Amino acid sequence: SQALAFGLKDASLIKNQGFINGQWIDAKSGATISVNNPATNEEIGTVPEMGLEETKEAINAASVAFQTWGKTTAKYRHDLMMKLFHLLQEHHDDLARMITIENGKPLVEGKGEMTYSASFIEWFAEEAVRTYGEHLPCALPGVRNVVIKQPIGVVSILTPWNFPSAMITRKLGAALAAGCTAVIKPPPETPFSALALVELAKRAGIPDGVINVVTTQKNVIEVGKEMCENKLVRKVTFTGSTPVAKLLYGMAASTLKKVSLEAGGNAPFIVFDDANMDDAVEGAAICKFRGSGQTCVCANRIYVQASIYDEFAARLADKVAQFKVGNGLDSTTTHGPLIHSRAVEKVIRHVDDAVASGAQVLVGGKPIPDSSFYLPTLLSDVPTTALVNQEETFGPVAALIKFTTEDEVVKLANSVDVGLAGYFYSRDVGRVWRVAEKLEVGMVGCNTGLISQAIIPFGGVKESGLGREGGHGITEYMNDKLIVFGGLGA
Amino acid sequence: SQALAFGLKDASLIKNQGFINGQWIDAKSGATISVNNPATNEEIGTVPEMGLEETKEAINAASVAFQTWGKTTAKYRHDLMMKLFHLLQEHHDDLARMITIENGKPLVEGKGEMTYSASFIEWFAEEAVRTYGEHLPCALPGVRNVVIKQPIGVVSILTPWNFPSAMITRKLGAALAAGCTAVIKPPPETPFSALALVELAKRAGIPDGVINVVTTQKNVIEVGKEMCENKLVRKVTFTGSTPVAKLLYGMAASTLKKVSLEAGGNAPFIVFDDANMDDAVEGAAICKFRGSGQTCVCANRIYVQASIYDEFAARLADKVAQFKVGNGLDSTTTHGPLIHSRAVEKVIRHVDDAVASGAQVLVGGKPIPDSSFYLPTLLSDVPTTALVNQEETFGPVAALIKFTTEDEVVKLANSVDVGLAGYFYSRDVGRVWRVAEKLEVGMVGCNTGLISQAIIPFGGVKESGLGREGGHGITEYMNDKLIVFGGLGA
Amino acid sequence: SQALAFGLKDASLIKNQGFINGQWIDAKSGATISVNNPATNEEIGTVPEMGLEETKEAINAASVAFQTWGKTTAKYRHDLMMKLFHLLQEHHDDLARMITIENGKPLVEGKGEMTYSASFIEWFAEEAVRTYGEHLPCALPGVRNVVIKQPIGVVSILTPWNFPSAMITRKLGAALAAGCTAVIKPPPETPFSALALVELAKRAGIPDGVINVVTTQKNVIEVGKEMCENKLVRKVTFTGSTPVAKLLYGMAASTLKKVSLEAGGNAPFIVFDDANMDDAVEGAAICKFRGSGQTCVCANRIYVQASIYDEFAARLADKVAQFKVGNGLDSTTTHGPLIHSRAVEKVIRHVDDAVASGAQVLVGGKPIPDSSFYLPTLLSDVPTTALVNQEETFGPVAALIKFTTEDEVVKLANSVDVGLAGYFYSRDVGRVWRVAEKLEVGMVGCNTGLISQAIIPFGGVKESGLGREGGHGITEYMNDKLIVFGGLGA
Amino acid sequence: SQALAFGLKDASLIKNQGFINGQWIDAKSGATISVNNPATNEEIGTVPEMGLEETKEAINAASVAFQTWGKTTAKYRHDLMMKLFHLLQEHHDDLARMITIENGKPLVEGKGEMTYSASFIEWFAEEAVRTYGEHLPCALPGVRNVVIKQPIGVVSILTPWNFPSAMITRKLGAALAAGCTAVIKPPPETPFSALALVELAKRAGIPDGVINVVTTQKNVIEVGKEMCENKLVRKVTFTGSTPVAKLLYGMAASTLKKVSLEAGGNAPFIVFDDANMDDAVEGAAICKFRGSGQTCVCANRIYVQASIYDEFAARLADKVAQFKVGNGLDSTTTHGPLIHSRAVEKVIRHVDDAVASGAQVLVGGKPIPDSSFYLPTLLSDVPTTALVNQEETFGPVAALIKFTTEDEVVKLANSVDVGLAGYFYSRDVGRVWRVAEKLEVGMVGCNTGLISQAIIPFGGVKESGLGREGGHGITEYMNDKLIVFGGLGA
Repeated sequence: SQALAFGLKDASLIKNQGFINGQWIDAKSGATISVNNPATNEEIGTVPEMGLEETKEAINAASVAFQTWGKTTAKYRHDLMMKLFHLLQEHHDDLARMITIENGKPLVEGKGEMTYSASFIEWFAEEAVRTYGEHLPCALPGVRNVVIKQPIGVVSILTPWNFPSAMITRKLGAALAAGCTAVIKPPPETPFSALALVELAKRAGIPDGVINVVTTQKNVIEVGKEMCENKLVRKVTFTGSTPVAKLLYGMAASTLKKVSLEAGGNAPFIVFDDANMDDAVEGAAICKFRGSGQTCVCANRIYVQASIYDEFAARLADKVAQFKVGNGLDSTTTHGPLIHSRAVEKVIRHVDDAVASGAQVLVGGKPIPDSSFYLPTLLSDVPTTALVNQEETFGPVAALIKFTTEDEVVKLANSVDVGLAGYFYSRDVGRVWRVAEKLEVGMVGCNTGLISQAIIPFGGVKESGLGREGGHGITEYMNDKLIVFGGLGA
Repeated sequence: SQALAFGLKDASLIKNQGFINGQWIDAKSGATISVNNPATNEEIGTVPEMGLEETKEAINAASVAFQTWGKTTAKYRHDLMMKLFHLLQEHHDDLARMITIENGKPLVEGKGEMTYSASFIEWFAEEAVRTYGEHLPCALPGVRNVVIKQPIGVVSILTPWNFPSAMITRKLGAALAAGCTAVIKPPPETPFSALALVELAKRAGIPDGVINVVTTQKNVIEVGKEMCENKLVRKVTFTGSTPVAKLLYGMAASTLKKVSLEAGGNAPFIVFDDANMDDAVEGAAICKFRGSGQTCVCANRIYVQASIYDEFAARLADKVAQFKVGNGLDSTTTHGPLIHSRAVEKVIRHVDDAVASGAQVLVGGKPIPDSSFYLPTLLSDVPTTALVNQEETFGPVAALIKFTTEDEVVKLANSVDVGLAGYFYSRDVGRVWRVAEKLEVGMVGCNTGLISQAIIPFGGVKESGLGREGGHGITEYMNDKLIVFGGLGA
Repeated sequence: SQALAFGLKDASLIKNQGFINGQWIDAKSGATISVNNPATNEEIGTVPEMGLEETKEAINAASVAFQTWGKTTAKYRHDLMMKLFHLLQEHHDDLARMITIENGKPLVEGKGEMTYSASFIEWFAEEAVRTYGEHLPCALPGVRNVVIKQPIGVVSILTPWNFPSAMITRKLGAALAAGCTAVIKPPPETPFSALALVELAKRAGIPDGVINVVTTQKNVIEVGKEMCENKLVRKVTFTGSTPVAKLLYGMAASTLKKVSLEAGGNAPFIVFDDANMDDAVEGAAICKFRGSGQTCVCANRIYVQASIYDEFAARLADKVAQFKVGNGLDSTTTHGPLIHSRAVEKVIRHVDDAVASGAQVLVGGKPIPDSSFYLPTLLSDVPTTALVNQEETFGPVAALIKFTTEDEVVKLANSVDVGLAGYFYSRDVGRVWRVAEKLEVGMVGCNTGLISQAIIPFGGVKESGLGREGGHGITEYMNDKLIVFGGLGA
Repeated sequence: SQALAFGLKDASLIKNQGFINGQWIDAKSGATISVNNPATNEEIGTVPEMGLEETKEAINAASVAFQTWGKTTAKYRHDLMMKLFHLLQEHHDDLARMITIENGKPLVEGKGEMTYSASFIEWFAEEAVRTYGEHLPCALPGVRNVVIKQPIGVVSILTPWNFPSAMITRKLGAALAAGCTAVIKPPPETPFSALALVELAKRAGIPDGVINVVTTQKNVIEVGKEMCENKLVRKVTFTGSTPVAKLLYGMAASTLKKVSLEAGGNAPFIVFDDANMDDAVEGAAICKFRGSGQTCVCANRIYVQASIYDEFAARLADKVAQFKVGNGLDSTTTHGPLIHSRAVEKVIRHVDDAVASGAQVLVGGKPIPDSSFYLPTLLSDVPTTALVNQEETFGPVAALIKFTTEDEVVKLANSVDVGLAGYFYSRDVGRVWRVAEKLEVGMVGCNTGLISQAIIPFGGVKESGLGREGGHGITEYMNDKLIVFGGLGA
């Protein structure tokens, strides 16, 4: 992990082992996973290839730790989490750098992610002490109803590589605050951010067994199955693709576990003719190309009203043409690589399909050979039947589609099976409320391409997932328990 | 349906057809299901044996109706539901009588159920107009966050025979209030309560397609599968056994549907030595033998502290010996039959097993031959390994187990995979809070055997289910939608 | 009360006595107050001129009744209030007619008021059973915090003549639902609506002493003082003018009573140049002239942006010119009289002052001699220094002021000491949020002149009052009580 | 301020000036107030004797600062307050020491107060970002209701000497978090804690004008009047005696300001015969004698059930006899002086009156001459008519009264005009709920004498005050604003 260590102030944040019951450990088999920098395709380190046995140990450790952690006061957990929050701030630059090296995103985005990631630890620390229960008016004389909130138990956490740190804290923060213990399976592409986070949690004093990490790549099916089916686990939380979400959901059914799933997006981005053009162009550029298009809330289908279509296309083309692709550590880079060559292949497939269907390439339109880079691309006149309109591209390709009426575009926007985020630009207050209500998505950005904040209920409808993270999301890690007090006498 | 009609004031409440898109219809195949009175084993009528095709039609009708119903104001739905509530009150006696005839429970319990059933229509009507969203403080200047609640869509409702009316209204009330439309599959044992309810909803003016009913028995697998897998359905809600709950859950996974599951119980009932003995005996008698033990919150395992064990056993035996078994329409009857002979067989199996393991029969202990009746039974010194301690008996058998310490009994109580309700009697305020918090169940009765009210969050932990009904349960039929307003300017 | 009875279906709703401890009674002095129909100036009946002694008796009765009413279950109160709600619906036409006869407003507005009035009884009945307390996470091990809500005690209710029924139910509904008892002092101009309401409450079964009514005119000071200073009263709630609000507030201070005050308005109504003109003209006509301008949320100052000023003035003039003034019972009447000649005098003063300051009369501008009618009036080019811009006119006078910029008009709108409602018309979503946030008022109507609904938090800022009615307003009639449970042991 | 500085690590925390618009300033008159250490009666420093003019300047500064502070994001205020919280932790020992020196309480209590004081800054920082508004379901089609929370404006804060720091942060924390600005009038006895707090706020970066401090003693009437009547002030919050509360309330009425008043207590403390005796004796000792009885939630009347009266009296006497009175800086001191000789005089009056009425002195019963110390005192058989039972003693005198039945003691407990805190010891869960509900107080301790935590709703009923501090108390510094969005179109 020389490469990874490059430029870090505190190289001891780099961990190349799993973490079970407070101990850093190797795989029992001794096998390892090679982790590469997608900007250079160099190996930056290895982590253990763990399997079923380690997963069971991690779950057992979490289960034992739950017996005490789950009974601590919320204030105790709050204070420990605040310590972790301050450690995250202290090591902000190092953590951001690690994200850029293993994920490829520009350093400014790595820093943005770390601010976002840390915000969940702070937010949920503060939520812990606010897990109010209720006193319910009772229709029966002489009886009193109180509802308390209790932690649900051991939680399995499975996360993706596009936000290597923040997708963990959004789940782990809520779990810890609630009084749950956790087993985390980070993605094999970006494990180091996760391990550094856990190292800091250990330094903050989070007790042994409360957080456990199992790294795996080849054994992912058996590890995932155990995380979903083991009786000691009471909840599974996942961010990733819709097909995997369905798979895990089905596994969790066998023991009636609670699940939170944040699956795929395919977000519509609509520009009405009464939009502020500057804002809309700027918003589209950010919303589509952030993380090189590899976020689940990235715009995927850009609908532009006919009368302003040409101007919008021209102005967005100008903007995209100015992007500078490169290594995220280079301060002039605006857009980094995709995560690996398989990701590039999907983008190639989507662009080729669109072009074959009649779309025109206004900017970009091809990969950089022998790399994980694909040039930021703008396609015009993309038919609604094109693949890029059916599935998430998860890459730097903006597909423009022309529309005429509000009704038409709402129908188009809602024509897919998923519904995570949706965006539109319009100045008319009536249209803004109307369209916001009609879009079949969990989150709507009106005149903005950025919606993520710790306080919001993040999540989708239809096949984009179940449950909400952030905001009041701590309740998804707790059970309501009713206590009825009888026998009060006269 | 002569038998069923017996004594009704308004025989037009009896419907022997399914209900799709506002029309009463037969099965396409013409097949029917025979419904019996469990107290007499006489047929009281038939309903259609519907299948896949009718289920699809019902779902389509619900999906079309959702386009308008889902956009009505909450006040409009409130007012229609209040009309339905008043119709339920007006026809209270008839509806209670129908329950007793098809389910077997004593008329006083039938009336109790109808009061309870109607209470959910009223409660959720009132909740409809209180589906508050939120305005969230925003960390970004010039941006405003609003969260609104929207109905989730078409809901599949699958319910059991032990509360033929109330288990429907607890789900349907929430669904209607939220703006959802529904397809109901009532149990084949007790369909008439459900159909009468729907007839009254029609009279109240609930529009066509908003409520649909598919009756089925033999085709239950294909009907259930369609209700869980059809893409037009966005939520599945079920009350019944844990195995079926797991099955449906797995089916719902295929399209990432939201589920609410209220599954099996096996409730502990603990009597501490500082209990009020009168209250504890009375509570045990009610909590165990209500509905002849056929409710999911019935006491199933009765733990009594050693020093008061003998007295408690003797006094409960006295009480049980006074029960009068018979036809629920007979006003002297305190306890009715079980639902059918298969239910009796399970009880026989549990009692035989207990006796074989060393338990003593204090009262009852056998079925009434050639009937669906089993005598109210009290077993003493039941070993913790007996079947009756492992599974829900769902019958009129009270199994007494002796214990010594608080820690011991809490451990015993928590030793099963499920956790719906739990009860205990103790006067010490410290113990009351302590034990209430330690029991791994969703609902705790302290010094009371009755906990059900419309306002409470009804539901369990572990393998007893997911989600909460009643109380704030309307939110389980709604999606939170975030709307971020940007571009506010200076 | 022949005149009043004219056309009623149930003349027994007319009561000409006060109501104390469940009894209809005369003043001890035998004195009476003459009540007139403002449209005809004919006496329509009399009510007792009660004084200090009756007030004390009423408070004592309320205090005794509180001992039992305050301990009833919320469900019990809910059910009684629902009965009252249904009686209000049943007698809707009669009650509306009585409002028109004693207040003068057109019958369609009388009916509108009764719908609004009844809505508070229904709303708060439903709120009663939702007075949730809380369970608070505790930082101390072994301690549990529960917060319950309890009724505050006896409430004094003082109400105005402009909404003779609704202003009572908005307060009384909350009080009854909370478990409080009440002493009401209705206005001498419109006592019959109040007395009919109380008669129906009696018929609904509200127990004796829970509601009491003291009618007074000459003795208002001593009655009001007792209602604010008597130790048995725990809350004073008032709707009326700012000067009287201050007076009562000061009296309530002597015993640290809780107060809710809904005082004067002087609402700004702003039309921006990007408004929908049709909507803005329509909104201004309704918002300004409803109740002949005699509501506390009526527009009082109409600011119109320069570029559209002339068109707006012309179109509003057309609209106002079509109003038909007359007796509210006449179905062609659009606008009724003012409440009495003193009200006319204030309007004359405001118009004369405006004209003297340079304003032009576009429509109306004078009273109908020897009556309580003043012609609907539109003034143009009214200087900001005119009286009509400084105080509430409480009459049918629309004063138009020209403005240039958003900042300027916000400053003008906020330049008064009060802040109840404010309105503006604009289509731009950014401006809508911006101006809504900047207006120093409690309630903002954007592109609408009607804001009243039972669910909203009705009330103002600055010298327009304290507290909020409707919505969650039941909490203003309840105390939060913290219960800390210690000694839980291990 | 040599004496005050004694032992401080950072003497620059000692400020002897007022603080207006970010500047430390003297009184215009040059006059000063002498501040003494009550344990030694030595002067420990002086602060300015400010008056009307300085008060107006402070209010003006707060009003100007509100224009910007009130528009900052909640997150910005959160972060600044968190900085202040960390500074309070960093200077914890110094701040505790200052409290002991100016107030007299033992150092361990001074430290306890500082932990408590700082907890409000942290709590309300966290509350700031959780000032959720609402989206209200609307009965009118095409209209949307949103309720937002906005800061109320300039706040006047008047606080007592018994918690020189915590009583300020409980108010100031809420005010700052809400976006309000403040003018503080600390008590002349203990101004240095307040000034040190403000110095740290300045260091944390709270902008000029947001917090202002006016110190005064002789001019208190004119200063207080201005703080309550100045039109720029929108809220007055006060902790202190009931008579002063009434006075300020009356002043605030003149401009319809919102008030929060936390006034006098006179708490009952009841020991039932089923109490745990160890716990009850311990609880009484702490609850009565904390701060030498000078807290508003101190037990004032101790009712003991007849059958255990003698034992309780004997055991409490043993406990009290072991108290060690002295200078709070001495580590062996358990109880410090009273605040000044006037406080001692009131205690003497109460004890003399009780003895004259027949009470017996079991321990203590006299002052230490020429000092502000009064010996911890236990009185037995105190008649209910004694002064000590009618008024708060605010001193170290425990008055025991014998009672027989639950009903009797509840009546006695409720027989006073005030109702802040109440306590009782009993193990029976029925009695615990029953008595907790019946006591006419705002806060009840069951089996505990300590109830204060940042999360609880602190406040009383009857003449003990209005409003609640801590917990959700930030809402008392905010206005609900309704925004109705119309004109949404189809």
